[in-house]
Amino acid sequence: MNKDEIKVLLEQVKDNKIDVVQALEQLEDLPFKDLGFAKIDNHRELRVGYPEVIYCEGKTVEQVKDIIKFMLTKNNNILGTRATEEMYDAVKEICEEAEYNKLGRTIVIKKKEQQTTESYIAIVAAGTSDLPVVEEAYETARILGNRVEKIIDVGVAGIHRLFSRLDEIRGAKVVIVIAGMEGALASVIGGLVDKPVIAVPTSVGYGANFGGVAALLSMLNSCASGVTVVNIDNGFGAAYNASIINKL
Amino acid sequence: MNKDEIKVLLEQVKDNKIDVVQALEQLEDLPFKDLGFAKIDNHRELRVGYPEVIYCEGKTVEQVKDIIKFMLTKNNNILGTRATEEMYDAVKEICEEAEYNKLGRTIVIKKKEQQTTESYIAIVAAGTSDLPVVEEAYETARILGNRVEKIIDVGVAGIHRLFSRLDEIRGAKVVIVIAGMEGALASVIGGLVDKPVIAVPTSVGYGANFGGVAALLSMLNSCASGVTVVNIDNGFGAAYNASIINKL
Amino acid sequence: MNKDEIKVLLEQVKDNKIDVVQALEQLEDLPFKDLGFAKIDNHRELRVGYPEVIYCEGKTVEQVKDIIKFMLTKNNNILGTRATEEMYDAVKEICEEAEYNKLGRTIVIKKKEQQTTESYIAIVAAGTSDLPVVEEAYETARILGNRVEKIIDVGVAGIHRLFSRLDEIRGAKVVIVIAGMEGALASVIGGLVDKPVIAVPTSVGYGANFGGVAALLSMLNSCASGVTVVNIDNGFGAAYNASIINKL
Amino acid sequence: MNKDEIKVLLEQVKDNKIDVVQALEQLEDLPFKDLGFAKIDNHRELRVGYPEVIYCEGKTVEQVKDIIKFMLTKNNNILGTRATEEMYDAVKEICEEAEYNKLGRTIVIKKKEQQTTESYIAIVAAGTSDLPVVEEAYETARILGNRVEKIIDVGVAGIHRLFSRLDEIRGAKVVIVIAGMEGALASVIGGLVDKPVIAVPTSVGYGANFGGVAALLSMLNSCASGVTVVNIDNGFGAAYNASIINKL
Amino acid sequence: MNKDEIKVLLEQVKDNKIDVVQALEQLEDLPFKDLGFAKIDNHRELRVGYPEVIYCEGKTVEQVKDIIKFMLTKNNNILGTRATEEMYDAVKEICEEAEYNKLGRTIVIKKKEQQTTESYIAIVAAGTSDLPVVEEAYETARILGNRVEKIIDVGVAGIHRLFSRLDEIRGAKVVIVIAGMEGALASVIGGLVDKPVIAVPTSVGYGANFGGVAALLSMLNSCASGVTVVNIDNGFGAAYNASIINKL
Amino acid sequence: MNKDEIKVLLEQVKDNKIDVVQALEQLEDLPFKDLGFAKIDNHRELRVGYPEVIYCEGKTVEQVKDIIKFMLTKNNNILGTRATEEMYDAVKEICEEAEYNKLGRTIVIKKKEQQTTESYIAIVAAGTSDLPVVEEAYETARILGNRVEKIIDVGVAGIHRLFSRLDEIRGAKVVIVIAGMEGALASVIGGLVDKPVIAVPTSVGYGANFGGVAALLSMLNSCASGVTVVNIDNGFGAAYNASIINKL
Amino acid sequence: MNKDEIKVLLEQVKDNKIDVVQALEQLEDLPFKDLGFAKIDNHRELRVGYPEVIYCEGKTVEQVKDIIKFMLTKNNNILGTRATEEMYDAVKEICEEAEYNKLGRTIVIKKKEQQTTESYIAIVAAGTSDLPVVEEAYETARILGNRVEKIIDVGVAGIHRLFSRLDEIRGAKVVIVIAGMEGALASVIGGLVDKPVIAVPTSVGYGANFGGVAALLSMLNSCASGVTVVNIDNGFGAAYNASIINKL
Amino acid sequence: MNKDEIKVLLEQVKDNKIDVVQALEQLEDLPFKDLGFAKIDNHRELRVGYPEVIYCEGKTVEQVKDIIKFMLTKNNNILGTRATEEMYDAVKEICEEAEYNKLGRTIVIKKKEQQTTESYIAIVAAGTSDLPVVEEAYETARILGNRVEKIIDVGVAGIHRLFSRLDEIRGAKVVIVIAGMEGALASVIGGLVDKPVIAVPTSVGYGANFGGVAALLSMLNSCASGVTVVNIDNGFGAAYNASIINKL
Repeated sequence: MNKDEIKVLLEQVKDNKIDVVQALEQLEDLPFKDLGFAKIDNHRELRVGYPEVIYCEGKTVEQVKDIIKFMLTKNNNILGTRATEEMYDAVKEICEEAEYNKLGRTIVIKKKEQQTTESYIAIVAAGTSDLPVVEEAYETARILGNRVEKIIDVGVAGIHRLFSRLDEIRGAKVVIVIAGMEGALASVIGGLVDKPVIAVPTSVGYGANFGGVAALLSMLNSCASGVTVVNIDNGFGAAYNASIINKL
Repeated sequence: MNKDEIKVLLEQVKDNKIDVVQALEQLEDLPFKDLGFAKIDNHRELRVGYPEVIYCEGKTVEQVKDIIKFMLTKNNNILGTRATEEMYDAVKEICEEAEYNKLGRTIVIKKKEQQTTESYIAIVAAGTSDLPVVEEAYETARILGNRVEKIIDVGVAGIHRLFSRLDEIRGAKVVIVIAGMEGALASVIGGLVDKPVIAVPTSVGYGANFGGVAALLSMLNSCASGVTVVNIDNGFGAAYNASIINKL
Repeated sequence: MNKDEIKVLLEQVKDNKIDVVQALEQLEDLPFKDLGFAKIDNHRELRVGYPEVIYCEGKTVEQVKDIIKFMLTKNNNILGTRATEEMYDAVKEICEEAEYNKLGRTIVIKKKEQQTTESYIAIVAAGTSDLPVVEEAYETARILGNRVEKIIDVGVAGIHRLFSRLDEIRGAKVVIVIAGMEGALASVIGGLVDKPVIAVPTSVGYGANFGGVAALLSMLNSCASGVTVVNIDNGFGAAYNASIINKL
Repeated sequence: MNKDEIKVLLEQVKDNKIDVVQALEQLEDLPFKDLGFAKIDNHRELRVGYPEVIYCEGKTVEQVKDIIKFMLTKNNNILGTRATEEMYDAVKEICEEAEYNKLGRTIVIKKKEQQTTESYIAIVAAGTSDLPVVEEAYETARILGNRVEKIIDVGVAGIHRLFSRLDEIRGAKVVIVIAGMEGALASVIGGLVDKPVIAVPTSVGYGANFGGVAALLSMLNSCASGVTVVNIDNGFGAAYNASIINKL
Repeated sequence: MNKDEIKVLLEQVKDNKIDVVQALEQLEDLPFKDLGFAKIDNHRELRVGYPEVIYCEGKTVEQVKDIIKFMLTKNNNILGTRATEEMYDAVKEICEEAEYNKLGRTIVIKKKEQQTTESYIAIVAAGTSDLPVVEEAYETARILGNRVEKIIDVGVAGIHRLFSRLDEIRGAKVVIVIAGMEGALASVIGGLVDKPVIAVPTSVGYGANFGGVAALLSMLNSCASGVTVVNIDNGFGAAYNASIINKL
Repeated sequence: MNKDEIKVLLEQVKDNKIDVVQALEQLEDLPFKDLGFAKIDNHRELRVGYPEVIYCEGKTVEQVKDIIKFMLTKNNNILGTRATEEMYDAVKEICEEAEYNKLGRTIVIKKKEQQTTESYIAIVAAGTSDLPVVEEAYETARILGNRVEKIIDVGVAGIHRLFSRLDEIRGAKVVIVIAGMEGALASVIGGLVDKPVIAVPTSVGYGANFGGVAALLSMLNSCASGVTVVNIDNGFGAAYNASIINKL
Repeated sequence: MNKDEIKVLLEQVKDNKIDVVQALEQLEDLPFKDLGFAKIDNHRELRVGYPEVIYCEGKTVEQVKDIIKFMLTKNNNILGTRATEEMYDAVKEICEEAEYNKLGRTIVIKKKEQQTTESYIAIVAAGTSDLPVVEEAYETARILGNRVEKIIDVGVAGIHRLFSRLDEIRGAKVVIVIAGMEGALASVIGGLVDKPVIAVPTSVGYGANFGGVAALLSMLNSCASGVTVVNIDNGFGAAYNASIINKL
Repeated sequence: MNKDEIKVLLEQVKDNKIDVVQALEQLEDLPFKDLGFAKIDNHRELRVGYPEVIYCEGKTVEQVKDIIKFMLTKNNNILGTRATEEMYDAVKEICEEAEYNKLGRTIVIKKKEQQTTESYIAIVAAGTSDLPVVEEAYETARILGNRVEKIIDVGVAGIHRLFSRLDEIRGAKVVIVIAGMEGALASVIGGLVDKPVIAVPTSVGYGANFGGVAALLSMLNSCASGVTVVNIDNGFGAAYNASIINKL
């Protein structure tokens, strides 16, 4: 409600075209409903196919079940991340179509059909140990309506395997690079493609890896310019970002 | 402007007691001026004696001078923290009454008289090397209108000195404890007084002190329950908090 | 016992109004009973309703039971923090009225009625995962005799939810902000209220969160001036502090 | 050179349409010139207006001058980052049109006209101390051919200032958020916009800020999903990424 | 395929000695098969006795079994590191000759005879707690075809024990030093021998040892010049390196 | 065997007073037996009552049993630290007189009577949670033949309790201070006594305690001059040192 | 003043042997003068030759001069540590006999003769770069009245040099080991002597040395039992401790 | 001197073939000269062309000059590392042939001719900013008598440049990889060559690089097996190691 609209309203009051109570109703919500930030609240559900998201870690099976029960009432798609199998079993009881990705630890419930993008997100991963993060990213990107291509096991220690998949990677609109240990893959790909690269350090490694810190620092210090980084093991965040970019 | 006030305004419009343009003027600022969060913007100056604050570190002499020049137009008290002498000299040129606390690195400009609280803030410090932080806290608390008592050089290595000043410390409404090295003073005082204790770790120390981290961790882990902590060397923040509490 | 009182005592001795043994009894305790620091020892129980506190973590079920058994002899209120259900079961055997807050992991035993403050402490939390710390803070503040209002799930990612509760937060005498992940909520609230804000970083998060360090650093570096910080997950400490301030 | 092209070439050899030496010349470069990764080398200059970039830190004035001298022979636009004024003076001697951004420490040389995008990058910064990073990002985004809008001094401690600029931020195709201290601004904006947000922690702060680590961790742990992060003070990297996205 | 070979090929095409299709076949693989990096792919298996290596940590029993099943088809020697007994049992089912080193957590499958070097690798370890890393290094060096001598329990706290084994250590072509706690052994041996010393910090220790970081830093800062370091507990990496050197 | 003794020996050879074989026997051991460092090896057992020590952590029950079986053959006293109850049960089978300190996790076997010192070691601890370290130190000091006094639960948060035990602490020849959380007790005692103070940080605490690092840094940065530090939870090391000093 | 003495006093009052005012004088100081902790205050000066100590770092030349001027009035020996030459020049003006140790950065003023111990402290250092810390320790130990022997440049990289000085080291009553880089010397000496070893890590080193942290961790994790540690570069603290032990 | 030789000596004494004094002379040095570790002392100079090495950092110009003056008396080659130009000027005064490598900060004095190896060490570096470390390694390897090839500016962001130099790298007997920022080059090369790779992290970078820690961790966690690591910026150590290997 901009200045002009308020003016019109006031003139309607003055001219007795609407009464004070009605005018009041429209004005009193002004600060919260009409302000930019208020729109935020509902914008996600409004778009077709945007899922509800629930981060299950640190929640009890009971809590997860209750939250999803409530979400189901909105008839939206639902994505649960970091979910245990036990959680999935509980959710299954209240929702037949719930699907579980064991590696990625995601619960996906599809209530609405959703258009898939033509352009695709490439998810590139260094090793098989990075698969849990790959799968979390994959499920997230999918439920958000993206076409996705996975290119796995192309770590820099055997760099020719990476080159043989280069066309696929370059064909994507945005690239997610997932790597643990020293995370060098992000820099190498960053130097080979001219698309936005979102790097996900994984906690794969041991010793002076410090649960993914080695890969995280490596990616933050990447000598290739086209790389941004998300938190360790944050496959969801990377895919969420990639989806925004893929749909621009 | 609450619901009732808007209603009154609308009725005045209806009754032609004020015209649409005037009503519009009052309403169009609604989201920003009258919303709770909008009040924040101006609330400091509105209270008598509340100073404008400028954090000078990382600013050029020129920038500091310009900002203070602008602040002077509001005729408020002004506090500059982390100010160099060079900055002070530049400010002095545009404002005769500016005062500089060399140890505390503060510039203080008093434009308005200010009531001083009856209850006082005790600033307790372990050693003479902590004086710069003491002075920053002192000047901040003073310009905010507080009575302040300084109790210096009462580190735990000579604990009887602390005890001989205990009454003074206990007499305060809120206590700021400033200590570097291992910061043990905060725990000892926290166990001796029943007032809010705000601990300020200082960067005084060397080696495995890591620029105040030893004292910071010590204070965060205090075995005494009545202690909260601010950032290393943050005398301003401690005094600002203490002032809020002292004026409750 | 000050100088004048000792003088009176000595004169009574001289005048044979009390005998030497009686005088000795009063004097021999002087260093420990009458010194300022000695008063500390008993001050908590003396005030009506002040609880005994036991930190249960790292203690065996047996030890917790024994300590509480002893505490019960003093007929005081009792607060056990970081208590397991197993501990609670053991305590329940010796004290019927013991209550357990499963989320907050507290055992509360109310032996004495206690006045509740009129002013209240607002406990504001970012997400549902922060609830264990919220509940610890809540139980602590309650047993210390404070009125408490909880405002939950108002994280900065959906900032309009925070604004819709702003009046409640501003109405408090002191505000506890509990947040994990990046802990931004403390800064946002610090900028919106003019009351003492005690920030509690929680260990909620993963990866480069380092068990709450991200939120801790965030809160220590808050750009809002009115914020002090306690240790990660230290709901008890925050509430203990808030209670001191609330009762000033 | 794909399979078909090689076949054509071989047939030309067979038919004596080109001689062996000519064919050899085309084939011997095959592995390096025509392979995907080889294209990388030249792809930047080939696009109109793509600048050469030189990171000046840790180089001598002499070295910077020499490198730029060589770059000038290619007649491309040039961007020097982290450049001192002394470096600029040296460059000025060999190139009249070199421009220096003192705050951003960039040298910009425009040799070619460049189309500017219609969509824009919003650069949002918390405080005036973050300006050096803002300017580096600004100059980078500009020389890469982007329309840019700067929204400065909208830190979360005075959140209404941020809201008054929200439309401008939301109008952008991609948002760069630059903040030091606790870096909360990234989370707040991440929750308010539905565009890719690239967060740049700055080294602004002191004590337990650790040269930007507090803001870095804060941003990596952002509770808002749409946020990726670059290295501390890396205005260049953020702008480079934003430019790729802005031009998708 | 170098320039001369391509020339010959082209001349054969020209002279119709081979037809275009055959020539094409040879040329089209050029970028991937003949480039230096492409050779890498197969180089390990080509050498007699070089084992396939599988890092089992973070893989399921099923995965390990499947991978080894596939490896067995190549009839090569196989080394599994960080393998649990459960994994071994599963592998045993599909391969009778699989052997398990319980301490070193390695699975070894010898399919081919292998020459053992005359020169030997000395594996020197500080204490018995370092044995798991010793055994991993030992099995790795053995399956790679090296003669190995183990010198155990010669920590610096009883330095005469080290001296009594000095000849054995000096007789080696390359020395692996394995030590936890403060890792001083690497420096002492580095000062006593004139052979390449590869230091392996182990995670043996507690408190301020930080899971091997103390030993790691100690070794990286060794005052003896002849020492290089691998990751904490990385017995495999040390032995792999030592083997390369031993076979030079 | 010094120069003069060797000369005498050679003259005896020359004069045929002893034959070559006998002389050779004495000389060939020279480098190892007679050198200073060679004496080290046996010095511990030679002294009455000096125990064999075995650090059990990271060893299997079997290994611990075997090592102690071997140690028993020397008929010495034995101290096992960081031992589980399961280890104790196994040891008990081969040695009736083995005793287990459950809190301190020590196994003690007394084979020889031992003189106890007249001077005593004071073991002072902040809280009951520090008891495991207290007990490890106690058992170590006892088996090494020291009189020991324990002063427990005298943390700085209730400093008068500490003062009431001060005479006992000051009466010791050497003081061990054991404290977790912020470890302030070491500084306070360091300022109150004029004896060597050995500080042991414990891993008691949570959050920003980092497993004892807060106390460790606190103790290393102690403002009291008479304090040295051992590793976190290292009750054994502290007692071993204290014993050396107590017996000077 | 114990119970019996107070009783005597009271009886004297009763019997009019002393008047109330005199009795009062003795009693009113009771809490501060006669309590154990009060004795601390003066104990240092009371012993012959005990110096006043001033830590000069972080103080201005003026402040150092003023403090020493005041100290001179007590006619005691004085030790200034971390003093610059400029400070020394200022002190020289007010005290002719002040001496400066340039390497150790100490100012020493001898006002009283002092007995030197017969037993000695051995100060052992790894390299010539550790000399500043050696000299600080040396001057401290000397002014405290100890005989001191320095054994320099016996780092573990050339371990035979250490052995050739072993008798000297073993002859000491207490050993200070000063070493930077990896600090292995402390462990080696700890294994060779049976005296208290106080280890001082120095900040000598670079890269992953982190200003002495590598040596600090190394020493805290020493595999030799007889080692305690002080802060990085804390030669004063080590010598102060060694002196207490040497005089037991 | 082994057992047989001692026997022969004793028999010569017995038979009066040599007198007691001569025999004594040979025997009295036994512990130090003939023991294995004693040989160490002189082994470097004994080999032709082995240089004396002096680490100049933290030494005064005077000290460096004096040490080199002494070294010159032995007529050996000399290598000074981390030397300033001022040091070089001082050395130049006493030794005409001293040469200074400004980038590498080395002083080299060649007094003896030296054979150069046929096999070579490849020094591979990511960027021009790594040149100081490259030059230190180069000068070290050269003065130790090695043929060296430098391959510069082949960072992974432009990986085709690396491939065009691959043959040169593979031709080496040992490869030194020098890289800052994220240090990914070590992993890429480790995967491409089958020679020992010694990785040197450099302190090139900013922000979350932490002075080379990012590259250090990256290299320690390298997914390529053939990589060992030395300290940050330790070009000397890498070359010293490489030289030992190159001469095997």
